[in-house]
Amino acid sequence: MKRSVVGVEIERLIQLLARLPGLGPRSARRAALHLVKNREKLLQPLGAALGDVLDKVSECRVCGNVDVVNPCTLCSDPRRDTTQICVVEEVADLWALERASAISGVYHVLGGTLSAIDGIRPEDLRIAELVQRVTTGGVKEVMIAVNATVDGQTTAHYIMDQLAENNVKVTRLAHGVPVGGELDYLDEGTLAAAVKARRSL
Amino acid sequence: MKRSVVGVEIERLIQLLARLPGLGPRSARRAALHLVKNREKLLQPLGAALGDVLDKVSECRVCGNVDVVNPCTLCSDPRRDTTQICVVEEVADLWALERASAISGVYHVLGGTLSAIDGIRPEDLRIAELVQRVTTGGVKEVMIAVNATVDGQTTAHYIMDQLAENNVKVTRLAHGVPVGGELDYLDEGTLAAAVKARRSL
Repeated sequence: MKRSVVGVEIERLIQLLARLPGLGPRSARRAALHLVKNREKLLQPLGAALGDVLDKVSECRVCGNVDVVNPCTLCSDPRRDTTQICVVEEVADLWALERASAISGVYHVLGGTLSAIDGIRPEDLRIAELVQRVTTGGVKEVMIAVNATVDGQTTAHYIMDQLAENNVKVTRLAHGVPVGGELDYLDEGTLAAAVKARRSL
Repeated sequence: MKRSVVGVEIERLIQLLARLPGLGPRSARRAALHLVKNREKLLQPLGAALGDVLDKVSECRVCGNVDVVNPCTLCSDPRRDTTQICVVEEVADLWALERASAISGVYHVLGGTLSAIDGIRPEDLRIAELVQRVTTGGVKEVMIAVNATVDGQTTAHYIMDQLAENNVKVTRLAHGVPVGGELDYLDEGTLAAAVKARRSL
């Protein structure tokens, strides 16, 4: 802003909001204004909610999920099959799988993928912790549910190598046509994978 | 979410973030996760910034702008021409005009537009306050800078009627081709207005 019409307080709020994924400088301004206009209904509760999360939420020391208890609800749930570990890149992926009720086992959040470009090495991810969990015993299957990107696949192969000496089954998610997806809109790689992995009816 | 993987604290944060303009349920989840992952660098400062704004920022009793001082910086600026009042719908419009350094006078924020559909009546807007400011004297021009929408124009005409008895010049922003705009992409209404208001070179 050429002339500062907004006080430093609002300016700072706008700058912080703009750092949230999905909000640019323009939408951060709109969001800040919306907050100022809705003091009681939104600004005050959001401040309180942030304080609550800051006070209570931490990273699970077992799987890397975020929760108010540590180990997290999923790790402490006795109905969960602890012999099966599902490895994901981020907590958001864990949430997505949980929404789908797709996993009966427990999770392991890597915190990203290996990346030569971004300089992310194995020691920057929670890979040693995964190997440790598997080595400590009782784990029968490690399901690698990383994204189907180049970095994701590199990471998957690295993890597979690290687990090679352990007597554990390593699996990955199936590739194929998304449910409800139209063939015409799919890329060649997915179609080729779907044909290769075809099942008899 | 079918099964609640996230604690009530994070769930509440997601719900509040989803009420910000520009963030849907999905991006609110991503934003919440981003906050949790960046406790020191983002979550804590954002909470503090919200508290600051809550404590210090209020609506200017003269023009309706939001600021840490009341009357606001613009209303108290002696270099501002108080004989010219620029009427806008929202504070965001005021900020936009200030960024353009387009107004040398002072502002009056209506807080919206008249709308039969949304049930917004003249008494829901700061129109009486505007008439009061004009009646109290010294104002030579009221520039109505509402949006060029149907509701905006309805509001402009209503304000013009309310000010008819006062000896004050009422103006509106020019319609025309946006600077840098290509004719091919403009609607017929704008083009017709631009031709009608053509100027000799």
